[in-house]
Amino acid sequence: MKYEFSARAHTLLSSPLLSIRTQTRRSTLISLAEELPAEELFPLSLLAETASTVISADASALQYGDPEGYGPLRDWLTGDWLKGKGVAAPEGGVLLTTGSQQAIDLLSRVYIDPGDRVLVENPTSPGFLQALRMQGAVIIPVQGDRDGLLPDHLRTQIRQHRPKMLFATPSYTNPSGILWSLERRKEVLELCIQNNVLIVEDDSYGDLHFQKAGPGGSPAVRYPSLYALENVSQGGHVLYIGSFSKTVAPALRTGWAAGSRELIGMMTAAKQMADWQSSSLNQRLLHHLLDVTAFDLREHIAVLNREYNTRLKLMAELLKRPAWKNSDYALPEGGMFLWVSLPEGLDAMTLLKASLAKGVAFLPGQLCSVNGGGNRIRLNFSHPGRDELLLGMNLMSEAVTEFTARS
Amino acid sequence: MKYEFSARAHTLLSSPLLSIRTQTRRSTLISLAEELPAEELFPLSLLAETASTVISADASALQYGDPEGYGPLRDWLTGDWLKGKGVAAPEGGVLLTTGSQQAIDLLSRVYIDPGDRVLVENPTSPGFLQALRMQGAVIIPVQGDRDGLLPDHLRTQIRQHRPKMLFATPSYTNPSGILWSLERRKEVLELCIQNNVLIVEDDSYGDLHFQKAGPGGSPAVRYPSLYALENVSQGGHVLYIGSFSKTVAPALRTGWAAGSRELIGMMTAAKQMADWQSSSLNQRLLHHLLDVTAFDLREHIAVLNREYNTRLKLMAELLKRPAWKNSDYALPEGGMFLWVSLPEGLDAMTLLKASLAKGVAFLPGQLCSVNGGGNRIRLNFSHPGRDELLLGMNLMSEAVTEFTARS
Repeated sequence: MKYEFSARAHTLLSSPLLSIRTQTRRSTLISLAEELPAEELFPLSLLAETASTVISADASALQYGDPEGYGPLRDWLTGDWLKGKGVAAPEGGVLLTTGSQQAIDLLSRVYIDPGDRVLVENPTSPGFLQALRMQGAVIIPVQGDRDGLLPDHLRTQIRQHRPKMLFATPSYTNPSGILWSLERRKEVLELCIQNNVLIVEDDSYGDLHFQKAGPGGSPAVRYPSLYALENVSQGGHVLYIGSFSKTVAPALRTGWAAGSRELIGMMTAAKQMADWQSSSLNQRLLHHLLDVTAFDLREHIAVLNREYNTRLKLMAELLKRPAWKNSDYALPEGGMFLWVSLPEGLDAMTLLKASLAKGVAFLPGQLCSVNGGGNRIRLNFSHPGRDELLLGMNLMSEAVTEFTARS
Repeated sequence: MKYEFSARAHTLLSSPLLSIRTQTRRSTLISLAEELPAEELFPLSLLAETASTVISADASALQYGDPEGYGPLRDWLTGDWLKGKGVAAPEGGVLLTTGSQQAIDLLSRVYIDPGDRVLVENPTSPGFLQALRMQGAVIIPVQGDRDGLLPDHLRTQIRQHRPKMLFATPSYTNPSGILWSLERRKEVLELCIQNNVLIVEDDSYGDLHFQKAGPGGSPAVRYPSLYALENVSQGGHVLYIGSFSKTVAPALRTGWAAGSRELIGMMTAAKQMADWQSSSLNQRLLHHLLDVTAFDLREHIAVLNREYNTRLKLMAELLKRPAWKNSDYALPEGGMFLWVSLPEGLDAMTLLKASLAKGVAFLPGQLCSVNGGGNRIRLNFSHPGRDELLLGMNLMSEAVTEFTARS
């Protein structure tokens, strides 16, 4: 039949994100394009035991649950935030979602009408840009530097565009890896509070903070989330999202949104309409793993961070090769990505085509950018093992050299 | 802060569905309001063993998977449809979703713009009405009788409203339990093909068909799905949705949409934007259970059907009591619900209030209806055990008597 898709459905297909992912998943490509954690570090045996125990113990583990998610896991989370981050989440202020992407999508659906203005860091998360475009938002970039968004530019954009929302990732922005300074966090929060701008704070990478560079480097500094900074006044200007995908295992598809009761209540209603609820079985597995078994999330994250830091350093070493001499990047102190400027005149999509032919993929900067971004690429260092990383970077160096040698 | 929700977000809260569900889940109420399967029949020990095996075997069981879902489970499904229902699904024509509700929501998002007309059976699924309202669709009811939609009225509504889509549940409609005749199936399909109307066929209840009433009754007759009827011509007018929630376990949150490559491709792009993917772990558990263990889905469904049929008969017996003498219903041959007309003058929401006070809940007909429906109630017989069913119906009889005795 002749399908008549909805007006904005085409925004989904116009993005090359889907085809890059399909290509990288379906072949023997080495992928530096993804946002995957290292699967060799998954707590396999503890989870296998947990699953067997939880399912055997109680038939209700397989029944429908609550749309807002399994209560004891929500309680565990708020307890962890209180203990670890000093955040007091209100009762009814947490919704469990299918990863942080669903939190973004649900919020967009209940908060954004076509034509509404939304501020974003630029570059920003490709998944967030997709959800906004599907919702018909007008996306307004805000300039930043190594310390985060520039308050002056934020103020200008707020005055000029009267936005409803700001999407921000203050700790290890995807893709640029930037860690906002404490001062910037406070300034951005203050500006948004003054202007009734809702902040969506993605803290998916916040726990992945490494050692400082240099011998005997101490752990990277940590700053409170915007959610924690506002917490005292309970103003509800921050929706705090994150997930267990980067810290435990993505296939459990468990993320969260935390905010005021009013906002979470509306998102819960949207959640019920969208899919009734995420898997309460997976949520019970996580709760049992975190609360009952010997698994210690902080220790586990420390192990991840040591390994990711090693992989990052290896990638950085490989970027010192001649092929990359006119490229540029700042070494992040956490997260999963290196954000690299290509040598002048080399376009990311052109390089991607050549790299794919050689058997390696990366994410072209265009997908993370409101406009432009074509001279940047995002390289993931968390998923490829060290050998794979070495081979992948060799292949990419070859591809880059072919272009730079020509010019 | 002062939130400015999107224009249609209020449609989510205006529905009393959420609050009824919250009340029934949070208290000691006996609920005849839900769509829950009987948890005492879940294949607990096989699933516990499966989970342990699958997670131990392969770290990729915990990694991100494909947005369209775990390939071997999609293959198992298409194999099962070919073998059991004579349906040949095209390659790339299946998407795994978080239950059938997500299939409905994703389709609505890629196919419906505000103001588009959508035809529905009346009464129909509350979850579908919610998704359509959130999308801004104009919902047009089509009349039906005990054999399904009335082709003449369907033709009239198509001519008058030029709808894009028809939502239908030909096998044991939620809530009315109607099984469309083969002739009606063919007529409705033909009309929709002629008029380029996309049919969303919800087959969530199709496998729950019981014995005919009467001693030694044979199994209820089965008819091919609309999806199977069109299959030969591959016209792509039917999107076939269903799930394992009613036949294996809801907490695995695994449903599907099957249709043409073009339609499924667009829905997969929307799926990726909405939550990347459902839990591939749960999909692997299902696949292992269905394909590797001793579990036999057809045998399991036969066990469910025997028990559900017994519960249905019990409920029907209880409806013969004096309290219900001016009410009316048709005994369904499958599904999960009895759809009961209340004695004249008794409103479902009024009765609900009285019933909740006594400790029993049901679904008022208004939630299943485009308009009206206030003299009907939906009673679920699959979830309450026999004792609970007896107690619940006693309490409801009391509530009904209080009203009818008064008038």
